[in-house]
Amino acid sequence: MPFDPSQLNYNADGLIPVIAQEQATGEVLMLAWMNAAAVTRTLETGKVTYWSRSRQDFWIKGETSGHTQQLIELRYDCDSDALLAVVHQHGPACHTNRRSCFYTAIRGDDLVEIMQPMA
Amino acid sequence: MPFDPSQLNYNADGLIPVIAQEQATGEVLMLAWMNAAAVTRTLETGKVTYWSRSRQDFWIKGETSGHTQQLIELRYDCDSDALLAVVHQHGPACHTNRRSCFYTAIRGDDLVEIMQPMA
Repeated sequence: MPFDPSQLNYNADGLIPVIAQEQATGEVLMLAWMNAAAVTRTLETGKVTYWSRSRQDFWIKGETSGHTQQLIELRYDCDSDALLAVVHQHGPACHTNRRSCFYTAIRGDDLVEIMQPMA
Repeated sequence: MPFDPSQLNYNADGLIPVIAQEQATGEVLMLAWMNAAAVTRTLETGKVTYWSRSRQDFWIKGETSGHTQQLIELRYDCDSDALLAVVHQHGPACHTNRRSCFYTAIRGDDLVEIMQPMA
């Protein structure tokens, strides 16, 4: 059965959340959003392409920074309302220059930065 | 600086997406949602507690199935609008009895089930 991006369940804004995970390490890099057209572009180009909610435009990850995400495999969940993009991340995924956007851990009453910006 | 769940950025429904990841393997298990009270309960009890959008109620993961998620660490991202829950998952995370909800891969024109239900 060929895949049709319209089969996925999008929210009221026509968006679906996407988890990006680095294939080599299993590290969760970021969470962003796609619409159906971004899903199609991602699958066709192999360049992970989100929908920027702030800019209301396509966002080819790394197009300006060079920190691209090469799609290895796109998966979806049992409710068809979330995507998992297994990727090869070139350089940091986060705009703060960290490998992952999830660099702050809640440890008891402390907030701990568990990751430094890449050199 | 102590952590206050109200610091996080919730959507118009007062919810924030949460990625659950198995600590032992790095596997991404599921994506679900929390409100601020669910974040507090999760941190206080160590039992990952979502907000069920369908039932409009707290959802202590595994409370009925026994397939609980023990919180190892809660992290948030650079925009404070997504959470990563590193967990120890007891049994399958998915209601289909699979380890992860992300068991369908899009491979060219094929949809491939990459994971079978647990015995």
